[in-house]
Amino acid sequence: MATAAPERAQAQQTKSGDTKWVWLFRDGNGSLRDLLGGKGAGLAEMTNAGMPVPPGFTITTDACNEYYRNGKQFPTGMWDQLQAALKDVEQATGKGFADVSNPLLVSVRSGAKFSMPGMMDTILNLGLNDTTVEGLAKLTQNPRFAYDSYRRFIQMYGSVVLEIEKDAFEHVLSAQKKKAGVETDPELTAENLQQVITQYKEVVRKHVGHDFPQEPLEQLKGAIEAVFRSWNNDRAIVYRRRERISDDLGTAVNVQTMVFGNMGDDSATGVAFTRNPATGAKELFGDYLRNAQGEDVVAGIRTPLHISDLKNDKALPGVYDEFVRYAQQLERHYKDMQDLEFTIERGTLYMLQTRNGKRTGGAAISIAVDLVNEGVIDQKTAVQRVPPGDLVQLLYPVIDPKATARPVATGTKAGPGAAIGKVSFTALEAEALGKDGEKVILVRRETSPEDLRGMIAAQGILTATGGPTSHAAVVARGMGKSCIVGAKDIVIAPDESHFMVAGQRVNVGDWITLDCKTGNIFVGQVPTVDPEIGEDFNTLMQWSDAFRTMGVRANADVPRDALKAREFGAEGIGLCRTEHMFFDDPDKPQEERTRTVREMILADTEDARRAALEKLLPFQQSDFEGLFRAMDGFPVTIRTLDPPLHEFLPKEDDQIAELAQISGKTVEQVHQRIESLHEQNPMLGFRGCRLGIQYPEITEMQARAIFRAAVVVAKEGIKVHPEIMIPLVSDLAEYRMQEEIVRRVAKEELDGKGVEVPYMVGTMIELPRAALLADKIAEGAEFFSFGTNDLTQTTFGLSRDDSGKFLPMYVERKILQEDPFQVLDREGVGQLVKLGTERGRQTRAGMKVGICGEHGGDPSSVEFCHMVGLNYVSCSPFRVPIARLAAAQAALQTGERDR
Amino acid sequence: MATAAPERAQAQQTKSGDTKWVWLFRDGNGSLRDLLGGKGAGLAEMTNAGMPVPPGFTITTDACNEYYRNGKQFPTGMWDQLQAALKDVEQATGKGFADVSNPLLVSVRSGAKFSMPGMMDTILNLGLNDTTVEGLAKLTQNPRFAYDSYRRFIQMYGSVVLEIEKDAFEHVLSAQKKKAGVETDPELTAENLQQVITQYKEVVRKHVGHDFPQEPLEQLKGAIEAVFRSWNNDRAIVYRRRERISDDLGTAVNVQTMVFGNMGDDSATGVAFTRNPATGAKELFGDYLRNAQGEDVVAGIRTPLHISDLKNDKALPGVYDEFVRYAQQLERHYKDMQDLEFTIERGTLYMLQTRNGKRTGGAAISIAVDLVNEGVIDQKTAVQRVPPGDLVQLLYPVIDPKATARPVATGTKAGPGAAIGKVSFTALEAEALGKDGEKVILVRRETSPEDLRGMIAAQGILTATGGPTSHAAVVARGMGKSCIVGAKDIVIAPDESHFMVAGQRVNVGDWITLDCKTGNIFVGQVPTVDPEIGEDFNTLMQWSDAFRTMGVRANADVPRDALKAREFGAEGIGLCRTEHMFFDDPDKPQEERTRTVREMILADTEDARRAALEKLLPFQQSDFEGLFRAMDGFPVTIRTLDPPLHEFLPKEDDQIAELAQISGKTVEQVHQRIESLHEQNPMLGFRGCRLGIQYPEITEMQARAIFRAAVVVAKEGIKVHPEIMIPLVSDLAEYRMQEEIVRRVAKEELDGKGVEVPYMVGTMIELPRAALLADKIAEGAEFFSFGTNDLTQTTFGLSRDDSGKFLPMYVERKILQEDPFQVLDREGVGQLVKLGTERGRQTRAGMKVGICGEHGGDPSSVEFCHMVGLNYVSCSPFRVPIARLAAAQAALQTGERDR
Repeated sequence: MATAAPERAQAQQTKSGDTKWVWLFRDGNGSLRDLLGGKGAGLAEMTNAGMPVPPGFTITTDACNEYYRNGKQFPTGMWDQLQAALKDVEQATGKGFADVSNPLLVSVRSGAKFSMPGMMDTILNLGLNDTTVEGLAKLTQNPRFAYDSYRRFIQMYGSVVLEIEKDAFEHVLSAQKKKAGVETDPELTAENLQQVITQYKEVVRKHVGHDFPQEPLEQLKGAIEAVFRSWNNDRAIVYRRRERISDDLGTAVNVQTMVFGNMGDDSATGVAFTRNPATGAKELFGDYLRNAQGEDVVAGIRTPLHISDLKNDKALPGVYDEFVRYAQQLERHYKDMQDLEFTIERGTLYMLQTRNGKRTGGAAISIAVDLVNEGVIDQKTAVQRVPPGDLVQLLYPVIDPKATARPVATGTKAGPGAAIGKVSFTALEAEALGKDGEKVILVRRETSPEDLRGMIAAQGILTATGGPTSHAAVVARGMGKSCIVGAKDIVIAPDESHFMVAGQRVNVGDWITLDCKTGNIFVGQVPTVDPEIGEDFNTLMQWSDAFRTMGVRANADVPRDALKAREFGAEGIGLCRTEHMFFDDPDKPQEERTRTVREMILADTEDARRAALEKLLPFQQSDFEGLFRAMDGFPVTIRTLDPPLHEFLPKEDDQIAELAQISGKTVEQVHQRIESLHEQNPMLGFRGCRLGIQYPEITEMQARAIFRAAVVVAKEGIKVHPEIMIPLVSDLAEYRMQEEIVRRVAKEELDGKGVEVPYMVGTMIELPRAALLADKIAEGAEFFSFGTNDLTQTTFGLSRDDSGKFLPMYVERKILQEDPFQVLDREGVGQLVKLGTERGRQTRAGMKVGICGEHGGDPSSVEFCHMVGLNYVSCSPFRVPIARLAAAQAALQTGERDR
Repeated sequence: MATAAPERAQAQQTKSGDTKWVWLFRDGNGSLRDLLGGKGAGLAEMTNAGMPVPPGFTITTDACNEYYRNGKQFPTGMWDQLQAALKDVEQATGKGFADVSNPLLVSVRSGAKFSMPGMMDTILNLGLNDTTVEGLAKLTQNPRFAYDSYRRFIQMYGSVVLEIEKDAFEHVLSAQKKKAGVETDPELTAENLQQVITQYKEVVRKHVGHDFPQEPLEQLKGAIEAVFRSWNNDRAIVYRRRERISDDLGTAVNVQTMVFGNMGDDSATGVAFTRNPATGAKELFGDYLRNAQGEDVVAGIRTPLHISDLKNDKALPGVYDEFVRYAQQLERHYKDMQDLEFTIERGTLYMLQTRNGKRTGGAAISIAVDLVNEGVIDQKTAVQRVPPGDLVQLLYPVIDPKATARPVATGTKAGPGAAIGKVSFTALEAEALGKDGEKVILVRRETSPEDLRGMIAAQGILTATGGPTSHAAVVARGMGKSCIVGAKDIVIAPDESHFMVAGQRVNVGDWITLDCKTGNIFVGQVPTVDPEIGEDFNTLMQWSDAFRTMGVRANADVPRDALKAREFGAEGIGLCRTEHMFFDDPDKPQEERTRTVREMILADTEDARRAALEKLLPFQQSDFEGLFRAMDGFPVTIRTLDPPLHEFLPKEDDQIAELAQISGKTVEQVHQRIESLHEQNPMLGFRGCRLGIQYPEITEMQARAIFRAAVVVAKEGIKVHPEIMIPLVSDLAEYRMQEEIVRRVAKEELDGKGVEVPYMVGTMIELPRAALLADKIAEGAEFFSFGTNDLTQTTFGLSRDDSGKFLPMYVERKILQEDPFQVLDREGVGQLVKLGTERGRQTRAGMKVGICGEHGGDPSSVEFCHMVGLNYVSCSPFRVPIARLAAAQAALQTGERDR
C-alpha cells in the first residue's frame, strides 16, 4: 500500500490553497486514516472501489484538533467547505436538506484513527423536522416509522447535543405508554408517537430555553460540535488510557446519507466478518435482520438470521452474491479479514463500514497463515499480524466466552488460562486433596517456597496480596499454572475456615473459578473451553524462528519444566533457580530435601554444614542430569543459590518444634537462628552471592553437583553446556571469589574424566551498581544475564511484593505508563540494560548477554532487548512462543526501519 | 620541600649505572621516603644535617619488592653494594665486622614508607659471636652486659630469622633461673648467662640442624631476609589493611651501628616529641632512662625521667642543650612536630630516629595554628595538617586514655563521644529515669521512632542490630548523642530483664560505658575526660571557611538542633525530616502529636484524615518557625513526609488497645490497618512521595505549615528561604504532582500577606532511576539533593539495616574497600551522583545541587562532592566542623592539582 504521508500533505489543501477540512468520500482513500479516521478512510476506499456507499463526507481529525485549539470554534473555511460538500451529496442522492418532498437525512458519526466502539456519540436521522417528517411518512408510506424516527432523533439530539438528561425523555415515553395502556415502545401507534414528539419538544424548550432546532444546517452544526466534544468525554478518555491511544489524535466526523433497513421486508441491516473471527475459518460470518435498523440488532429483541441465509432469501434476491463480491474485494484490498456493516434499503445493498476485524488469537494465526497460502500476504506480514500476547489463549483453557457468571473480585493475572477447584487454605491440605484426585484452588494471603507442593497439586493459586512478580506469580508462571495474585478484596479469616469477598462468605471446599485472562474471580464453577494448538500455530512459529535474530530460552528449574520448555521451542535454559531443588520434590518425597536444607542452615560449624550439603549434592546432581538431558546440545544457565536463607526455615510453631527435634537443638535455638536470619528488607539483604561468599561450601557443593551431572550425562553422548551464573554481584571482587570456587571444582570434577564439558562462568546483572561497573565485572564474567526483576526493584526503589499498594494507582493516573514489573521500563531500567551491555562488551567484545527476568516473555520488553542487541531472552516456558513471535516482530520492524 | 620523583629517578642508579639498592645514610635525604622508607629517609636527613647519627645504610624498598619478584632472591648487585657500604661504616666507626678487638655491632630494622610500629621485625647486636662477645666484654669492661647482649641476640635471631619457637629459649632461661635460685633475668650472673648461651646454641642446633651462624655477614644476610619476609607476616598484613596501606610498597631495611645506652651512668636512652602530643603545647615532651637500652624503657620496670630532667643531669652534661638544638632543627626542617629517638653512649648523644609525631586532634589543631603564628607554615598547610575525623575528639567527652578497663563487646560506632549510664531496656523507663536525673543507657535490639523520647532522655544508646545508618545511628548522630549499634554479641533476654555478653549477665540498672570513638562497650563506669574547644579550633575553622568553595549545611529537624548547627557553623539546613515533628515533643507532651498522627493514619476517609492533619498543622508550623528563626538568612531545606506510615503505629498490644479506644475503632480494626500497612521490604515500599501522591492532603498540610510559618517569621523581619524537597522521586510525573500542591498552597498562603518569601521546590535524588532521569526531572525540580543513604542502598541492593550481617566481612576481606554507608562509594554510587548532577545541570544550567546523606560528614565523601562540583554538603550538626575542614582540604587539594 502506498505510504500516506506525502499524499496527505498534498491533499490537505483545497484547490484554492486553503486547508481542506471536509472531504467527500470519493476524494479520500484508505491510506488516510490519520486524517479521516478509520471509518472515513474505509468509506472513501469503498466509494472509490465502486461499491454502493451512501454518499457523504468526512470532517478531518485536524479540524477536531483545530476546534480545540481555537477555543471550540470551527476552523476557518470548514463550514463553507461543508456546505459545498453537502450540495454534492444532495446532487448525488437527488435529495435535499429540508426538502419536504424528498428529504435528505444524514447520520453524524465519530471516527477516530483507532476504533473506540461505543465511546463517542452518534446521531441518526438528522434532517428531520416538523415538515420533513411528513415527507418521510409519505415517501415510506409508513407514518409510524417516520414519527418514531423523528421521536428518536429528538431524543438522541436532545441528550447528545443539547445535553438534556435522558430521564426527561424516558419519563415522557413511559407516561405515554401508560396512557396508551401498552407495555413496549413498538406497541405505540403513530398517533401516540406524535404526542410524544410534542412533549419531547416541550422538554427541550424547558431545558434549554429555546425550541428544538428545525433548521437541518443548525442541527448539523450542533451534531458536529457534539462529536468533537465527545472526543474528550470521560468514557472516551478512560478508554484511550486503557488502550494506550494518544489523546491528541482527535476524531473525524462522518456525515453520511441515511439509508434504512427498516423500510419493509425488502430492507435489512447486518454485520459480517469476511472470515470466522473465532476460528479463522474462511467463511462469511455474521448475521442480518430484515426490516430493521442497526439498533434493533443490538437490542437483541429479534433473532437475526445467519449471513448465509441471505443467499436464499427470496425477499432479497441477488444481494448475497453482490455482498460476497464486495467482501472479497475489500479483503483483497486490505489484505486482511474485514468487519463489514451493510444495509439493504428496498432491495438495494449499501456498504456502511469496513475495517480490519477483531479476532481471537487462534483465528489471528489461522487467518495469517491462510492469507500466506492464498498468496495475499508474505510470511513477514503474517508474522507481524499476530499480537504475541494473544498466543496465551491458544495454550490454555479459557473461560467459555458464552458464560454469563459475574466475578466477585478481580486481582492481578499471573499464570495463564482458567482454573476451577475447591477452596483450600493450606498447602498441606491442597496436596492431600490433590492426591485424592480433587480439584483444588490454593488460596493464600501470599505464598512462600514452603507452599510449593500445594501449588503443584492445585489447579490454580489465588493470593490476597503480592504483585505480578511475587512468589506465587513467578512460580505459577514457571509451572504454567493458573494464578491470580493481589486480589485485595479477598479477606481470609484468621482461622482459615473461609474468606469473605464482596459480602459473600466462601468456605473451605467451596468451588471457585479463576479467569487468568482477565484476573476475574468467580464463586462456583464457570464453564471453560479447551484450546487447540493447530498446525497453523506451528507454521507461524517456524516462520517467526526464521526471522528472529535473538535466541529464546526458558526459565526452568526442574527436568519436567525443561521438557515443557523444549516443547514450546526454547533453545536452552536461561535461568535455572537452584533453590527450587532445595525443596522436596513431590515425586521423591523420601529425599527429604527441605529437612536437609534446614539442617544445613542450622549448622553451627562448617563441618556440620558440609555434612548436610553432602546429603543434598546427589539430589541436585540428579536434577541437573535431567535438565542436561532435556537440553541436549543447548546451553543450561544455572544460578547459584540466591534467596535469603530464612525463606527455607519453617514459620509455624509445630514445624519449628519438629525441626528442633530432628536437628537435636532446642526450640529456643531454632527460634534464635530464625530470629538471627530475620531481615528488615530481605530483598536487600543476605542473599545472592553474599551467601556463597559467607558460606563458600554452598557454592562448592552446587558446582560439584553441576559438573558431576555434566560428566554422567556427557558419557551418555549428550552435549552439555553448563553456564554457571553468580547472582546479585555488585563488584568484580565478589564475582572473582565465587568464580574461583566454580573453576576449582570444575577442574577437580572434569580432569581425567575423558569427556568434554565446555562451560562458562558469568553473572546476573541485577543491581544498578553491576550495570554501572559492567566493564570491570566483564573482566571476569564470561556472560551477563540481566535480572530485570531485581534491577527494576532497585532502580525504582520499589519492592515487587509491596508495590500492589500503590503501583496500580500509578498506572491508573499515568504517572507510569506501564507496570514496570510487567513491561520493561525503557527510560530508566532500560538505560542500565543498554549501558551494562555496552560496557560489558567494551571489555569483552561480542560477550553473550541475555535477560532472564519476567520481562523476557513480554512483547514490548522483547522488542527492547532486540534493539539493545541482547543475544537472547529467557522466560517462563509457556511464554516461550510469545517471546519467539515478539522477537521475530522486533527483528522485522528493525529491519524495516533500517531499510 | 623539593619533590622526590626526579631526584629519585637519578639517584636510583650507582655510578656504574646499576640499580642502587644500598644507600649510605649520607647519600640519601628526607624526600626519599618511597625508596628508603620513613626511618631511612629520616636517618639520611639527620646525617646530612650534621647530627650525630650512628653510621649505617639503608637497603631500598625496591630491593624488597625485587626480592619478592625474584622468588625470594636478593636482587643482582645488592650484596656487593652492601659489602661496600659496610666497609664505609667500618671506616667511619673504626670498628670491624668480626673484629675481636673492636667489633662492629649493628641493628637491622625494617622501615616502610609509612610507620608500622611493632608490626615487623628488628634484630639488635648483630655481629656478636663466640669471639666478638669477648671483645665487647673487654671493651665495655662489663662481661655480664656482653653475655646478656649475646644471649639476647641468639634468642632474637633464633626466633626471628631461624623461626624457632620462642618457648624453646624461654624454657632454657627459666631452667637456668631455677638452677641459679633467682627470680628475674637481671639476677643472673655472667656465668649463668654463659651457660644460657651454650644451651641456646644447643637449641638452635637441635631445631635447624646446624650451628648458630658465627660469621657476621651470614648473620646479616639472614637478618635482612627476615625483615623482607616480615613485610608479609600476618600482623603486618592485617595492620596494612586496617590502615589502608598498599601491600606493594615494600619495606626498606636499615643497618646501623649499634650504640649503647647501657654502658654505665653516662649512658642513656630516650624518646621525645618536640611538642606536647596531647595538648600541642610548645615544650619538649618525653623521657629517658639512664644506663638502659630501648627495650628497658618499653618494659617499664624502671621509672624513666622526664626529658626536662636531662637539663640538670649531672651525669650527662651538655647533652640537653645539644638535643634541644637538634630537636628545633629537625622540627624546622620538617615543618612539623617530630617524634625523636636518641641514645647517649658514654656521654655522646646519638640521634636514632625522627618522624612526624602522632598527636591528638586537639594537639593537631594547636600545633598547626602555632606553626602558622611562628611563620613556619602557611594557613593552607595548617588546614591540610589536621585530619578532619579527629575533630570529633574535641567536641565530646572521651574515655580517659589512662583507663585500663577491658571492653566486653564491640559494635559499630554511631554517635560521638563516650557515655556512662544504667542499663534500661525500654524507652518509657529510660525517659522516666532520665526525668528523675538518672543517667541511663537505652539498650534495644533496635530502635524505632517510638523510642525517640527515651533516646533523648538517655546518655547513650546501644543496639544489638542495625548498621551505621540504622534508625538509632541516624537519630543519635543528629542529636550528637553517644551511640553504638549492631553490637551483635549482646543478647537481650526475651523478658528484657538483662542482657548477656561475653558470658556475663548485665541486669537492668547495671552501669555500662560506651566508647563511641572505638565502638567498645564496657561493663561498669569507665572514667571519661571532657574536651576543651579552644581558640585555636575557631581559628582553624575560620581559615578553613576561607579556603573552601562548597557550602556546609546541617541536617536538623527541630529548632534545638538547628541552633546547635548554627553554633557549629552550618550555613543552612540541608535536610529537615518533617516526620520527626510527627512524634511527641518531649518539651510539649501535651500536644500529643503521635496520637494525632495515628488518628490520621487510621482515618477511613479523606475528611477524617484532613481533620487529623488540621490538628497537626500548628505543631509543624511552630517547629518551622523555630527553624526559620534559627537560620535567619540561610536556606532551610524541608523534606515532605518520607517514612512508611507503619513506622508511626504502635507495636505493643496495650498501645494498640489504647489507640483503638482513642480512635473509636475496634482492636481488630487497628490490627487490620497495621497489617494492611505491613510490608515485606518497607525500604522499597509505600513511602516518600508515594505517600503524598496517594494522600495529597498530607503534602498540602505540610506545605501550608511551611508557608504559614514563613509568613509569621518574615513579619518579624527575619529572612526566610524555604526549599521544599520532594523525597523518593523516580519520575518527573511524581515530582510534578507534588510540586503542584506546594505551589498552589504557597500562592494561597503568601498572596497578599505583604512579605517576601523566596522559595524553591526541588527533589531528593535517592533512587538510581532519578539519577538516570535527572535531565527530565530537572525540567521541574529547581534543586537536587542527593540522598546518598538510600541511593547507596538501592545501587548496591543492600539494606543498611540488614547489612551488619555481612558487610563487616566484606570490608574485612577487602571485597569492598570501605563500608559504603560511611564512605561514599565513588565507583558505583559516585557515578550516579556525578551523572545526576551533570544531567540535571544540562537541563537547568547552574542548578543548585547538594548532598544530605550521612556521607555529607565524611571527609573522603566531602572530597568527592567537591570534585563532582556540588554546591553544598549537609550532615549532622556535630559533623559540620568536620565537613567544613574536609571541604577546605578538598578545595586546596584540587587547587594544587590544578596548579
